[in-house]
Amino acid sequence: MSIIVEQAEKARLAARRLRSVDHGSKDSTLRLIATRLREEAARIAEHNRRDLEAGQAAGLSSAMLDRLRMDPKTTQATARGVEQIAELPDPVGSIANMHQLQGGPLAGRQRIPLGVIAMIYESRPNVTVDAAALCLKSGNAVLLRGGKEAQHTNLVLGEIIRRALLDGGLPEDAVGIVPAGDRDGIRELVGLTGLVDLVIPRGGEGLIRFVAEHARVPVIQHYKGVCHLFLDAGCDVDQALRLAVNGKVQRPGVCNALECLLVHAADAARVLPKVARALLSEGVEIRGCPRTRELVPEAVAAADDDFGREYLDKIIAVRVVSDIDDALDHVARYGSNHSEAICTESQRNAQRWLREVDASCVLVNASTRFNDGGQLGLGAEIGISTSKLHAYGPMGLESLTTEKWVVIGEGHVRA
Amino acid sequence: MSIIVEQAEKARLAARRLRSVDHGSKDSTLRLIATRLREEAARIAEHNRRDLEAGQAAGLSSAMLDRLRMDPKTTQATARGVEQIAELPDPVGSIANMHQLQGGPLAGRQRIPLGVIAMIYESRPNVTVDAAALCLKSGNAVLLRGGKEAQHTNLVLGEIIRRALLDGGLPEDAVGIVPAGDRDGIRELVGLTGLVDLVIPRGGEGLIRFVAEHARVPVIQHYKGVCHLFLDAGCDVDQALRLAVNGKVQRPGVCNALECLLVHAADAARVLPKVARALLSEGVEIRGCPRTRELVPEAVAAADDDFGREYLDKIIAVRVVSDIDDALDHVARYGSNHSEAICTESQRNAQRWLREVDASCVLVNASTRFNDGGQLGLGAEIGISTSKLHAYGPMGLESLTTEKWVVIGEGHVRA
Repeated sequence: MSIIVEQAEKARLAARRLRSVDHGSKDSTLRLIATRLREEAARIAEHNRRDLEAGQAAGLSSAMLDRLRMDPKTTQATARGVEQIAELPDPVGSIANMHQLQGGPLAGRQRIPLGVIAMIYESRPNVTVDAAALCLKSGNAVLLRGGKEAQHTNLVLGEIIRRALLDGGLPEDAVGIVPAGDRDGIRELVGLTGLVDLVIPRGGEGLIRFVAEHARVPVIQHYKGVCHLFLDAGCDVDQALRLAVNGKVQRPGVCNALECLLVHAADAARVLPKVARALLSEGVEIRGCPRTRELVPEAVAAADDDFGREYLDKIIAVRVVSDIDDALDHVARYGSNHSEAICTESQRNAQRWLREVDASCVLVNASTRFNDGGQLGLGAEIGISTSKLHAYGPMGLESLTTEKWVVIGEGHVRA
Repeated sequence: MSIIVEQAEKARLAARRLRSVDHGSKDSTLRLIATRLREEAARIAEHNRRDLEAGQAAGLSSAMLDRLRMDPKTTQATARGVEQIAELPDPVGSIANMHQLQGGPLAGRQRIPLGVIAMIYESRPNVTVDAAALCLKSGNAVLLRGGKEAQHTNLVLGEIIRRALLDGGLPEDAVGIVPAGDRDGIRELVGLTGLVDLVIPRGGEGLIRFVAEHARVPVIQHYKGVCHLFLDAGCDVDQALRLAVNGKVQRPGVCNALECLLVHAADAARVLPKVARALLSEGVEIRGCPRTRELVPEAVAAADDDFGREYLDKIIAVRVVSDIDDALDHVARYGSNHSEAICTESQRNAQRWLREVDASCVLVNASTRFNDGGQLGLGAEIGISTSKLHAYGPMGLESLTTEKWVVIGEGHVRA
């Protein structure tokens, strides 16, 4: 039996034990994890240094090294995050809509953990802690398979968490650190039907495609965000400008950042120059269609592949569209089902946008940056799903659970 | 472009159009489908005869031929089913929990169709109509890939439905009949990421395994039902007897029928002989463990593979277990996450069963036969999911939808 199968079997047993653990034990163990992280901050930084040195030697970019860093300040913030998860309401156990069936027995739907979740991710080692805390709070066992670049940090974090589980009276195998290695290990992990209930890949496009390609167990993808903002004819220009700048500039490297602006042709001459000026003054590069370049001389020519592209940088594609139908077509073709916004004063067009756009978050006169678990009130998120099954959009604790039917009778049989 | 890709592209466009269709148009079109089915009952039976003749020539069993039959009486019942679906509440469009975010805008979760659903099934041609009606009602386009044995019937049903869609003002490509053929066609269909949102396979174990193996799009499995009933120490023997007989005998060929009885050792001498007698008198064959055979001389010896087996027949496996933990272990090892029942007078053991058994329906003192969309009040079901993601248990209309976030602001940006 391979080490990964062995870890999965142990996680499966731990998941069974977690079904009988009460809310209080989970929360006190989460707080213990936070305390231990703080106590061990120096040791974590020490192991992290080995990853950083190896990363430097391997020529990782400074942005990559930044994501890899787990200094005492990051550890503090991560520990605080775990405490916040402990304070959230427990999603497990409640029975919804208990009612009497025609045949006589009572029936309802009880919220339960999924079982064993495999998390596959890259670089940021704080994901190791965040994911472990969210899975534990929702009663799931988790197999954490981080990247090779963070392996020393992930191993020490795993050791600290597992020790805290044991000391808290919970099964230590509720959190397993799967050895980082080549993609054969990932292939094995995502093929474990009957042992793993869900795989969540988070990382670059290549990783997610690889998982989707090889998975035999269900996958929830956290795929790229190619987010659009459509500026309708007659829109408020100041509002348009605020939404465009906030969407593109506030944090260009995240998945709910704006990547493409669509502008209604009938009003482009009024709207586009002002919005473009504001973006340019923030240092944004504009890649425009021919009509955009007539109105905004600073714009460079957009290539075909500039539409549908996730820049994650201070670059934006701009296209003048003939009407809202053209905008809807563009979004259907180039969008990634992530976050799609309209800026409009037309009630009819707002309704059409809400109804006709297929995305995890559809926004009217609000920034795409609102598509975030924290902003939407979920308390914490394990990612933003662009899959439609099970969860669509930010995934909080409830998304890590499912519902089973419970039926309670007094010897009732079916007529 | 292959014919299947072409059909999927058309379904995708139809799914977009369905997003703007109101409740009334969907319901009146469903009623039109029912009317046309009744009008065309004779022609359907005529095409069905070709399938039946081919089936006879190919040596299909009489049970198989029975499932294949679509005579005017079956068509009547199927048409009535479509009308009942028209009368159910529309699951699409409602927005749950609209509330103001800290940042200012309103946010809520709107129920939306999944998009394009591929249904892969065998024999029963009435599934063609049922699945089309459920998908249409929930705003989805559907690709129906029935078995070769029912191809003539499925084609004429598809023709009738598509004509009714057109006459009802809806896109005819909302329902596509994928040509039956070899499994290469299935492989192609379940690989259409970006075109197909969900695959639902219904049929034998081989078909479901094939789909799970080759799918690149999400799959909800409707897998076998290896359902257990545990007779606890101190249980009411009359109740035990009723639950066992109802579970096993009422309809042995369905997935929520009982396949295995577990009996607490401390009370087996009191409980088991009476229950066994009742089953035997109904013509049920008992395959028992050694202790069972001591108490029930008529029982034959169970082989190892009698546990975990779905007989779909008047046969039951019986095992005496040492206690509830042993019963829980047995269910965790041999169950199929379908329907698992306990017969007990102990409140503590009832609670343990409800909490610790992982199945789509967990029952206390009630027959496994209650795990059914109709019995549980869903109105209609497209199957019983034994997958935990998205839907677990009977899938009604709501399971064919998902939720997206909608955010409505007045120029709100993220701070």
